[in-house]
Amino acid sequence: MEDRTQQEQASPAVRKRVQDSFDRQGLMTHLGARLAHIGPGRVHIVLPARPEVTQQHGYVHAGATSAIADTAGGYAALTLFEEDSEVLTVEYKINLLAPAAGDHLEAVGTVLKPGRTLTVCRLEVYGIQGDGERKLVANGQQTLIRANRPAE
Amino acid sequence: MEDRTQQEQASPAVRKRVQDSFDRQGLMTHLGARLAHIGPGRVHIVLPARPEVTQQHGYVHAGATSAIADTAGGYAALTLFEEDSEVLTVEYKINLLAPAAGDHLEAVGTVLKPGRTLTVCRLEVYGIQGDGERKLVANGQQTLIRANRPAE
Amino acid sequence: MEDRTQQEQASPAVRKRVQDSFDRQGLMTHLGARLAHIGPGRVHIVLPARPEVTQQHGYVHAGATSAIADTAGGYAALTLFEEDSEVLTVEYKINLLAPAAGDHLEAVGTVLKPGRTLTVCRLEVYGIQGDGERKLVANGQQTLIRANRPAE
Amino acid sequence: MEDRTQQEQASPAVRKRVQDSFDRQGLMTHLGARLAHIGPGRVHIVLPARPEVTQQHGYVHAGATSAIADTAGGYAALTLFEEDSEVLTVEYKINLLAPAAGDHLEAVGTVLKPGRTLTVCRLEVYGIQGDGERKLVANGQQTLIRANRPAE
Repeated sequence: MEDRTQQEQASPAVRKRVQDSFDRQGLMTHLGARLAHIGPGRVHIVLPARPEVTQQHGYVHAGATSAIADTAGGYAALTLFEEDSEVLTVEYKINLLAPAAGDHLEAVGTVLKPGRTLTVCRLEVYGIQGDGERKLVANGQQTLIRANRPAE
Repeated sequence: MEDRTQQEQASPAVRKRVQDSFDRQGLMTHLGARLAHIGPGRVHIVLPARPEVTQQHGYVHAGATSAIADTAGGYAALTLFEEDSEVLTVEYKINLLAPAAGDHLEAVGTVLKPGRTLTVCRLEVYGIQGDGERKLVANGQQTLIRANRPAE
Repeated sequence: MEDRTQQEQASPAVRKRVQDSFDRQGLMTHLGARLAHIGPGRVHIVLPARPEVTQQHGYVHAGATSAIADTAGGYAALTLFEEDSEVLTVEYKINLLAPAAGDHLEAVGTVLKPGRTLTVCRLEVYGIQGDGERKLVANGQQTLIRANRPAE
Repeated sequence: MEDRTQQEQASPAVRKRVQDSFDRQGLMTHLGARLAHIGPGRVHIVLPARPEVTQQHGYVHAGATSAIADTAGGYAALTLFEEDSEVLTVEYKINLLAPAAGDHLEAVGTVLKPGRTLTVCRLEVYGIQGDGERKLVANGQQTLIRANRPAE
């Protein structure tokens, strides 16, 4: 796995735009998720494991795992667009590879193929133990469409 | 669309098993979702639209839409298995067809192809207005694997 | 399964447009596939089982199964568009549900959600025995994008 | 992109097993595809661009692109299993990222997560020009299931 400690940051304007949009997502706040990295074409979201996000065996629910993966991919795409653009998820596919265990999950969305209309992202979610051990728990692929942002 | 008003119920034992498992899912409770129908090979889950489940434009977040779709498919499969079985999501793919608007969403998971090891489900999510108007807002396909339930 | 014997035909102009495009697909000819039905938003393609389309166990290869499914979905979308439109596959997902056995396969592409830019189709492939018995062998979901047809 | 010139080969026994199975696939021969690399957990398949594999605009058909991608993933998984194992595709999802143009295509199947029952692969297809220029034209994800090989 590549070294993630030295990562390029997006410009302050882009980071502000992504953070502001993220803060308007009621679901991310309700789940307890937060933006952990905003780079050009790559966004990380962290979700602490809590009883509020579990499935019936106490692991993080596939729905919560997918929610942060989908969101990370969407914002990864958004970092590449102009200020007046929005990004909507067209579809995604995700494999749940292992029980989503750990102290917290980290979703990584990475733009694989940017485009004027459609953008394709790779989605990865890692389960991270308290000692820092990382394990890939989900892997997916997502298609997004760019739209003009409605005036506010 | 087929008539959903006359629907077969699963046996009381199956319904209890599904409901008990659902009640152990911290995420479903946290999102405010509830089981609305448990039939043989088909399960419906309802999610009221609330600020806690939205994305940045106020529609229900794709992650919440997916979470109830994935859960509905999983329990649809579970209705067909013996008491000592568990069902895990292997993967799913979902298209977000329209903004998830409405008073509440209804996810419908339907077994398309049951199997001893793998089961494939169709996932549909409808946005339902206060006046009862239904609109398909997401459509997907899911692969599940049966496992023996760990002794409790 | 719904009755497929009484099916609506697309207009002669649309059928000609789809047939002409199909005839330009070298792969379809090479595989031995043919258009079996062109209706508004629904297209059927038949592929006879021959040694040229098999995998290592003698069943029809998932690649051939997918090729006719993808093509059926693409033309199902095309039936709904103006003459100057083309349709390109953005992505698809397909589950191989059972060995693709039979005298021939029939792929059915059905538009699930048409759109000005993106269209989503359901893909089904049936294995059909000499006695007419039909079995669902593959099921999928496809996203397509409309483009203006290049002048010829 | 990583250097692909220095690649680990699978053992002679594994390579023979994969090649023998590939040679029994009528479709691969009919399309003109060939195995280009058999490494542990990674297989490459090359498909020359010919009129027999095109869609209506002269690019390689998504069905042919998918067929070699699916096959590369299946054999990538097979390299990791015992001699008495077979591998079947459960499902895959593929994004067609760019017109599949070039002198030939190269599909690369890579095991992302091996498992006793299920294996998940990454699928990539490159269009390669006569001068060696490579472009990613398709990207996908595949789930496979291991089965015991029937006695011959």
